[in-house]
Amino acid sequence: MQPVLFYGVPQGSSFGSIVALEWLGQPYQLCRIEMLQHPWNPLYGYINPLYLTPALLLEDGQTLTESFAILMHLANRGLDQGLGFRQGTRKFDRLNQMLAYLNTDFYAAFNPLWTADEMPDLEPADRELLRTVGRAEVAKNCAYLDTFLVNQEWLLGGKTRTLADAYLAGIGRWVDYHQLFDLQQMYPNLHRYLQKLKSDPAVLFAEAIENDQAAIASSKFMGHVTLEELHAASRMPQVSRLVA
Amino acid sequence: MQPVLFYGVPQGSSFGSIVALEWLGQPYQLCRIEMLQHPWNPLYGYINPLYLTPALLLEDGQTLTESFAILMHLANRGLDQGLGFRQGTRKFDRLNQMLAYLNTDFYAAFNPLWTADEMPDLEPADRELLRTVGRAEVAKNCAYLDTFLVNQEWLLGGKTRTLADAYLAGIGRWVDYHQLFDLQQMYPNLHRYLQKLKSDPAVLFAEAIENDQAAIASSKFMGHVTLEELHAASRMPQVSRLVA
Repeated sequence: MQPVLFYGVPQGSSFGSIVALEWLGQPYQLCRIEMLQHPWNPLYGYINPLYLTPALLLEDGQTLTESFAILMHLANRGLDQGLGFRQGTRKFDRLNQMLAYLNTDFYAAFNPLWTADEMPDLEPADRELLRTVGRAEVAKNCAYLDTFLVNQEWLLGGKTRTLADAYLAGIGRWVDYHQLFDLQQMYPNLHRYLQKLKSDPAVLFAEAIENDQAAIASSKFMGHVTLEELHAASRMPQVSRLVA
Repeated sequence: MQPVLFYGVPQGSSFGSIVALEWLGQPYQLCRIEMLQHPWNPLYGYINPLYLTPALLLEDGQTLTESFAILMHLANRGLDQGLGFRQGTRKFDRLNQMLAYLNTDFYAAFNPLWTADEMPDLEPADRELLRTVGRAEVAKNCAYLDTFLVNQEWLLGGKTRTLADAYLAGIGRWVDYHQLFDLQQMYPNLHRYLQKLKSDPAVLFAEAIENDQAAIASSKFMGHVTLEELHAASRMPQVSRLVA
């Protein structure tokens, strides 16, 4: 049995894990989770009692949650391709640092913007305040990321892409999505980098998946599976940590 | 030269990294960063241009930022003590997952409460709303953590403590700090666990350090150093990523 990635749509941070699976090139399946549907399918509580995506169902029937842990797990499967690095090396530290930064500070910079988007009853002045705060936070973090990309092709500065690039392929899209500023003019290195990622076959594939289009060329995608199918096949974890 | 941990006060999430260094028992120094001081000492920009703590200055003169990356680095130095696990094992995955969860979801649950604390001009109704939202978020996450501690001494369920316990020793304090609910009655397993951590010598040491008291018994703490001293000794990183 191949691993199953549970990915959330729309605009999910799971996007990076799909890109990572494509770059890895080992067989996997996908299970789609509509994040705006309430309530979520209760079967997902067996996968993640916190009802957050992504999650990865492994060959041994255990699940792994948290983008960071999933990416580090896939990085270890992709050491030979340079997608991750051996424990104890400085490159391993640098990948951890970059992924943690993207997963906390950069990710959180967008929070005021999502709040502005998703609360229909906000006063216009409050919405504008949230957008102003969010724009400043995102700009500060884009400036930081830009410094890593001066004369560099990839985020960690080496000759090959790593899973930090896969993750940023997903959440870096949010800068354009929220129409915050002219990225090309303000942070040209980051702009060039994100443009290059946009045309990567794995990124195009992840976009087609997210948009529920007939997916184009893929590396080792073995099709979708539903929560009900996994349950019927007794592939759900035996022990759940359901939170009341 | 021993590593130097830059820790932020008050109530810093760096606390867990001090506990981790104590549990590790290898020589280290500390550098204190007053987080409420504005502006921060500009020399810290060489350590972390985002002006966030903690950071770890390593023996080779490089710095490592992000709690997660610092803890994973220390975990690798403490494999023999069971503080971390070998890459490629399921325990390694589990430690990554728990640290990532604590570093993102659990950490973020407190954000509305810090906002309520730190904005003096808030309307009382807005402050109460923030506290209500924060209390619900923290409660949901305490319920989740509690499920890991049923009949278990440590967060990952093994016989020995890991760096996930060190990190939670720091941010778990925030439940009491914000006086949200009766932890003992609502989440007895988490309560018992946090009480036990409170009397751990490394946790008592970290508290004394944070409160600027004469530190009590320590494992391998080699004293404080200032940013100015590090700069004068040419121990600051040569290359900075200063963000304008």
